[in-house]
Amino acid sequence: MSGQATVCDLVIEAGWVVPVEPHGVVLEDHAVAIRDGAIVAVLPRAEARARFSPAATVSRPDGVLVPGLVNAHVHNPMTLLRGVADDLPLKIWLQDHIWPIEAAVIAPDFVADGVELAIAEMLRGGTTCCNENYFFPDVQAATYKRHGFRARVGLPVIDFPTAWAASDDEYFDKAGEVHDQWRNDALVSTTFAPHAPYTVSDASFERIRMLADQLDIPVHLHLHETAQEVAQSQDKHGQRPIARMDRLGLVNDRLIAVHMTQLSRAEIDLCAQRGASVVHCPESNLKLASGFCPVHGLRQAGVNLAIGTDGCASNNDLDMFGEMRTAALLAKAVAEDAAAFDAASALRAATLGGARALGLDHMVGSIEAGKQADLAIVDMSPLETQPLHHVASQLVYATGRHQVSDVWIAGKAKLQAKILVDMDPDALVANARQWRQRIASIALPQ
Amino acid sequence: MSGQATVCDLVIEAGWVVPVEPHGVVLEDHAVAIRDGAIVAVLPRAEARARFSPAATVSRPDGVLVPGLVNAHVHNPMTLLRGVADDLPLKIWLQDHIWPIEAAVIAPDFVADGVELAIAEMLRGGTTCCNENYFFPDVQAATYKRHGFRARVGLPVIDFPTAWAASDDEYFDKAGEVHDQWRNDALVSTTFAPHAPYTVSDASFERIRMLADQLDIPVHLHLHETAQEVAQSQDKHGQRPIARMDRLGLVNDRLIAVHMTQLSRAEIDLCAQRGASVVHCPESNLKLASGFCPVHGLRQAGVNLAIGTDGCASNNDLDMFGEMRTAALLAKAVAEDAAAFDAASALRAATLGGARALGLDHMVGSIEAGKQADLAIVDMSPLETQPLHHVASQLVYATGRHQVSDVWIAGKAKLQAKILVDMDPDALVANARQWRQRIASIALPQ
Repeated sequence: MSGQATVCDLVIEAGWVVPVEPHGVVLEDHAVAIRDGAIVAVLPRAEARARFSPAATVSRPDGVLVPGLVNAHVHNPMTLLRGVADDLPLKIWLQDHIWPIEAAVIAPDFVADGVELAIAEMLRGGTTCCNENYFFPDVQAATYKRHGFRARVGLPVIDFPTAWAASDDEYFDKAGEVHDQWRNDALVSTTFAPHAPYTVSDASFERIRMLADQLDIPVHLHLHETAQEVAQSQDKHGQRPIARMDRLGLVNDRLIAVHMTQLSRAEIDLCAQRGASVVHCPESNLKLASGFCPVHGLRQAGVNLAIGTDGCASNNDLDMFGEMRTAALLAKAVAEDAAAFDAASALRAATLGGARALGLDHMVGSIEAGKQADLAIVDMSPLETQPLHHVASQLVYATGRHQVSDVWIAGKAKLQAKILVDMDPDALVANARQWRQRIASIALPQ
Repeated sequence: MSGQATVCDLVIEAGWVVPVEPHGVVLEDHAVAIRDGAIVAVLPRAEARARFSPAATVSRPDGVLVPGLVNAHVHNPMTLLRGVADDLPLKIWLQDHIWPIEAAVIAPDFVADGVELAIAEMLRGGTTCCNENYFFPDVQAATYKRHGFRARVGLPVIDFPTAWAASDDEYFDKAGEVHDQWRNDALVSTTFAPHAPYTVSDASFERIRMLADQLDIPVHLHLHETAQEVAQSQDKHGQRPIARMDRLGLVNDRLIAVHMTQLSRAEIDLCAQRGASVVHCPESNLKLASGFCPVHGLRQAGVNLAIGTDGCASNNDLDMFGEMRTAALLAKAVAEDAAAFDAASALRAATLGGARALGLDHMVGSIEAGKQADLAIVDMSPLETQPLHHVASQLVYATGRHQVSDVWIAGKAKLQAKILVDMDPDALVANARQWRQRIASIALPQ
């Protein structure tokens, strides 16, 4: 057959392929062929061997090939603040720890170093795309690009001066500049990232709505994170935050609404009607005692659901396998229904759901011909994953991120047999240790 | 100094020692000296080098030495049913899947093979002691003993015939035999394990109370797992299960009450007054949508809290690091207080709390001179655990069980630099695969 074989760059053979689309399917002994960074075919291994003549082959008979995970809400520079202040009420955590530390450290070096550490952690855990929300998006974008990592970086807008911008106009001017610089990049793109309803004015939200439409980018927003936020909005604006956002024209298919722990039936239906996406961050919501996102109700209403880890100061990791599992487990208890959120659906939320929330589902989130080859392999051979009765169940309920063996982004190998291809873990750890000392020396309010 | 040095078997030096008792303490650059399976001293590394002349030294400058974790509720033969039926309502899960499969497989070989796989998984995850609850406790006990693993095995009592016993008398006769055989063993001991209030009669509970007192062993019982269980008891007995257990004299300091998701304030106070221990199994409770254990209320009342994974058919792992993290996170959200259950307290519940529940806290559960050397080291050097701002936080919120490098039980090395000392993972996996095929061939009800 080799005379008729099609040339391609890479064929990945795996014991199982879970393409996510079609939903719930597990393909045994399949292969994926890749050319110019894109998937050209998903087919039985034997057929792939007959049909393709690849420049390289990776074969993982004990591995499950899945779409690279999409972490739909991160503050990755904060990876350097991992566990710096835990087990504290939200107000004390923010006012007496996070904000004073950030005031002392936020600068391009902190942002670049934090993002770099985060990229290594994400790659080692099978994550290939993230939705970033922090200051200095220019530095973030350059760092993601340098490491070949797919990201949406948020263009921050907040009603007070920060190290990034001093005035409303400066926030919007810089947003425009960063967007222009990255508008045609294949890996890095932007969102508008107004911080939250309680820190952004109506005027700025209106400006964001108009610009997001013009630039055709999503709006990434913390929304209904806590009951307190909702109560404050009712006091100040006479409306719940989501009603105010709707009045301002922001509840639509560009909206990436993060947290959403306090939602009425009517608010869930509004999200469904308008095509807004919800990013569920279960571990952050638990750890900060923010409340429970009504995942089952959102799914029943047809709202697109994504999963995010939130930042390392409130989680304390970027482990999408752990987050996917917590999401699946917690939704059952909250809905009082053990069938509420099954393993295949949790994996879908952590991949295609995230891609759709980010407006990238035409490119990534599932293993389909024509999509970018953003892929991860999970090794199912360790005894902790045996016996392997059901692949999707084991993926969600019994594997850990340390079982990820290989990762590709746009067809480029980023992790090979658990080794980072172009990052040096020792250097990253040494740099993190230097940051630990620097942060430990910051004087906190008594 | 060597002329005056004290001979001992082993000195373990670690970057940090978290002894659990005293509570909340992290000792930097400390060491633990071990002789005849017991801890003889916990002291600064430099002092240890001057004072002891050990036969062997293990040095882990990037490691945290913690007490071996105590998994306070397992059904370890069910490790072979890991993920065999997920995302199903409790009734369908039990009646259409678990029970028909168990009916086809429960026998000594299933019990021994499941326990063996579980021991390997527990050791690789830093667990050194478990509280077992399944049929064939004789086979379990022999298997734990053969592998040098510390366990309490439950002597099952249930109101219907099983592969283990055909009648009430046979359950009690066999219980007596197994207890007698292991009554003087240093590693393996017994509990009475009546299945649950809804499957055991008043007469059997009375007999158990009397025998548990005579034999001086704990009573290991599923209690208040679901709201349905409580309602059924009120219908049948005119009492909530815990009130019935109290009427039968079982709510006392021998009681290991597992799950406890439905508790009034008065029931919490009753547990506190009587010295009963509660085993919290958060992931099982979430996955089966059983309800939320009021961890914060129990702790405030002074009830001893332990942590268990439950069996692999409902979790799907024996990962006490994951369980400890889920317990800490979930308690905050349930209590609506981010300070409700902090990292040091979660680690305490997963070690000393478990030991106390099992009546073994005079022997294990903390790193103190005189206790058995049941110990684990967690490697904090991976980039996922950096920067290392706070040791206890990182242990609970950012490490995974795969970072456990070394484990000892009664001073005997069971895991060294991540390698099982006397078990063969390949053989265990091959055997698990054989069980997968056997279980897949069982005809289930349609």
